[in-house]
Amino acid sequence: MPHPLARELGNLIERGRDRQLRLAVTGLSRAGKTAFLTSLVHQLRHAGLEAHLDLLPAARDDRLLGASRVAQGDLGVPRFPYDQALAALDDTPPRWPEPTRGISELRLVIRYRPAKRGLLSSEIRELTLDLFDYPGEWLLDLPLLDHDYLSWSEAQNHRLHDGDTRQALFAEWRRAVAELAPDDEADEAQLAAIAERYAAGLRAAREAGFADLQPGRFLLPGDLDGAPVLQFFPLPGLATSQRKTLEALPENSVYRTLAARYAHYRQHIVKPFYQQHFRRFDRQIVLVDVLGALNAGPERFEDLSRALGTLMQSFAYGKRSLVSRLFSPRIDRLAIAATKADHVTPDQHGQLVSLLEALLAEPLKDLRFADVPVRAMSLASIRATRSREVEQRGKRTPALAGTTLDGDEVLLFPGEVPPRLPDPGFWARQGFDFHAFRPLPRDAGALPHIRLDAALDWLIGDKLQ
Amino acid sequence: MPHPLARELGNLIERGRDRQLRLAVTGLSRAGKTAFLTSLVHQLRHAGLEAHLDLLPAARDDRLLGASRVAQGDLGVPRFPYDQALAALDDTPPRWPEPTRGISELRLVIRYRPAKRGLLSSEIRELTLDLFDYPGEWLLDLPLLDHDYLSWSEAQNHRLHDGDTRQALFAEWRRAVAELAPDDEADEAQLAAIAERYAAGLRAAREAGFADLQPGRFLLPGDLDGAPVLQFFPLPGLATSQRKTLEALPENSVYRTLAARYAHYRQHIVKPFYQQHFRRFDRQIVLVDVLGALNAGPERFEDLSRALGTLMQSFAYGKRSLVSRLFSPRIDRLAIAATKADHVTPDQHGQLVSLLEALLAEPLKDLRFADVPVRAMSLASIRATRSREVEQRGKRTPALAGTTLDGDEVLLFPGEVPPRLPDPGFWARQGFDFHAFRPLPRDAGALPHIRLDAALDWLIGDKLQ
Repeated sequence: MPHPLARELGNLIERGRDRQLRLAVTGLSRAGKTAFLTSLVHQLRHAGLEAHLDLLPAARDDRLLGASRVAQGDLGVPRFPYDQALAALDDTPPRWPEPTRGISELRLVIRYRPAKRGLLSSEIRELTLDLFDYPGEWLLDLPLLDHDYLSWSEAQNHRLHDGDTRQALFAEWRRAVAELAPDDEADEAQLAAIAERYAAGLRAAREAGFADLQPGRFLLPGDLDGAPVLQFFPLPGLATSQRKTLEALPENSVYRTLAARYAHYRQHIVKPFYQQHFRRFDRQIVLVDVLGALNAGPERFEDLSRALGTLMQSFAYGKRSLVSRLFSPRIDRLAIAATKADHVTPDQHGQLVSLLEALLAEPLKDLRFADVPVRAMSLASIRATRSREVEQRGKRTPALAGTTLDGDEVLLFPGEVPPRLPDPGFWARQGFDFHAFRPLPRDAGALPHIRLDAALDWLIGDKLQ
Repeated sequence: MPHPLARELGNLIERGRDRQLRLAVTGLSRAGKTAFLTSLVHQLRHAGLEAHLDLLPAARDDRLLGASRVAQGDLGVPRFPYDQALAALDDTPPRWPEPTRGISELRLVIRYRPAKRGLLSSEIRELTLDLFDYPGEWLLDLPLLDHDYLSWSEAQNHRLHDGDTRQALFAEWRRAVAELAPDDEADEAQLAAIAERYAAGLRAAREAGFADLQPGRFLLPGDLDGAPVLQFFPLPGLATSQRKTLEALPENSVYRTLAARYAHYRQHIVKPFYQQHFRRFDRQIVLVDVLGALNAGPERFEDLSRALGTLMQSFAYGKRSLVSRLFSPRIDRLAIAATKADHVTPDQHGQLVSLLEALLAEPLKDLRFADVPVRAMSLASIRATRSREVEQRGKRTPALAGTTLDGDEVLLFPGEVPPRLPDPGFWARQGFDFHAFRPLPRDAGALPHIRLDAALDWLIGDKLQ
């Protein structure tokens, strides 16, 4: 076995030669991360043969020879479950793959012929592509690094008053926490019970389609289930003006106990992700389920917008940003993609991109200011519908044919995507009726997709020159 | 929040004053760890009142005032689920608590009056008792630190030939691994599939009552599920004489890939447990389900004996032992207890202890040689039976009354416990018929037990003087 340092050095040299690239995929839960990565790997593995990758020059010019999976770099990170995902798609009827939990990894070696050939015309090059998949919810925890428990508590309490539906989900927690005063002596069992209600509120909110949820790790506790570090919550009615009084409370007070847990969470959960993983990514794609949020109504759509604003802070690192001060990241290219484009008719794809850009208007300004190259697009990682035309009274209108999750074959027009942030009129008209479809049964070739090749070109195309 | 160093220092000072004690509870799965810890906490909390702790001098002399739970020291370790365990015991019908997974922690502050009072006769002292519960399976991994992949592989292959039942459980893995040569190029998916069969063999073996299983973390993967570090297995047919040839294989060969994963497991999974937890324990109790193994027949009994031999190596640290060379542990007192003593009639308890001592004869010699004070005992953490006498033909014989897990009320004599390692004659006679019982319904007082107070006296009694 090589010494870890020797291996790290080997990696560095590979990177120096532009032969290694670390590409990360993220998105909030249900944005389509697993489908995207599965399709990406599948396309590259079929690149030499059946894949349709016309928007990726290396493939169009027939220079892409294919890709093979090799042993990943980090032995302690779960492997991305590619085979299980393909098995789900090949099932009868086809199923969407199980969503991944936490971070996972997969390493491909891509073989290609360079665009400008040297004297040795048969030269073949290799690019090692490390793919990472991690929950976008982890990025929602970034602002915790900028807060201490007191200011976080204040901010969260402010947030919990947003929106009736969301508020209602935290009603039980609110009743329980109302009995607690900051200077009470901390009772472990009581704090655990109240924290569990807070976590239950977060889980219910996610189920109900909300995305802007903190702390992210409460939703996927893993091995830390039941540990005090995951048992805190904001205390209502705190104001930063009370700081001195609060910090003078005894160590076993409710306030000091919760503040200690919050600090531990920041230090041992939020920071390590940025230190061990995030700062090593070269490229990043953020997937967004715009259509799902559009379908769920104004409160969730507003919530998604806020969540994305928070999430994008991790990428908009000018010199003075929190991320760059703490972790010196090096992501040099970013893609933002509205997924499930196949769930609307092709004439709507342009509007979908416009809407995505409108949704991300503020973060995009920050990115431009920070000079991070970014591109917004729409795509379908794995097509679930076929595009059709319906003739009605002599007029041809576009439609989608597909099979719903319940197994009904339908032909429909799901509605028009508003090209900018929807106004109250849009919601009043209920102009959008998005359906969820099963994946199409797969034939022998590569998985059918929409513009996954465009995403590939932006994310890795320059390395295949 | 105090600085972590300040807190650690505070802990050190407490310890220096003999006011803090870290007591660890372990045992192989189903040995009764959860019941033991639940009862221990319950007895101490009821110590001033209804608890029957006559074998603990502080309690007998009425000096023990009780105990309360306080915030635990390590925020990143799950809390021992005491409330959930009590709720299970209070259910109708009563249930045994859910077994814990991984390590958990609970901190008690015990209040007592010292035995020799000073001038201030009303002086009350406090002892902070940190309780830890962790799977005995983790200790079975200790020998890995003494092996590299090659010698471990050899040792495991030797082991896999023990016993027909056990062998049969690994048949699928054996077929799959037979297709693999050490110098093949490693195929991630293939190695993952073969590793999964190995893990399935381990799980099946545990289900079938076997205990001597390595690597322990394969049975409780937690967040590492699917990571390459949990995807290795012994290669058949390796011999240490081939070392040079094997180590000269390319890095992506099957042999080198598996060896790298093995090394990562040793370094990042086995060692951290000893470094972060084990070396900080002051006292330790090892629980052993002798009766269960006796019931399961000679192959499992033999297996338990071997597993205990391995497990005890973590405690028998003379100056030259592996543990003391690597981790400078400080456990200064050890208890070994045969649990579920209430599942045999009281006249058998003496034999149960004799059998436990026979089972541990070799490790006990090592402990004595290393001068680690150790005591063997039998106990029932939470009684599940009542002791009765049956008169038959004018002769009174002891019997047990209890409710089986299926809900049948029975009165029976489960058999005689052999006072030394059972010979073939014992197994041929099928002399032992152990039943599993439900816990007794709890009345208002402390949980009924057998000799839990004796264990408490040995483990913490000297700190309550």
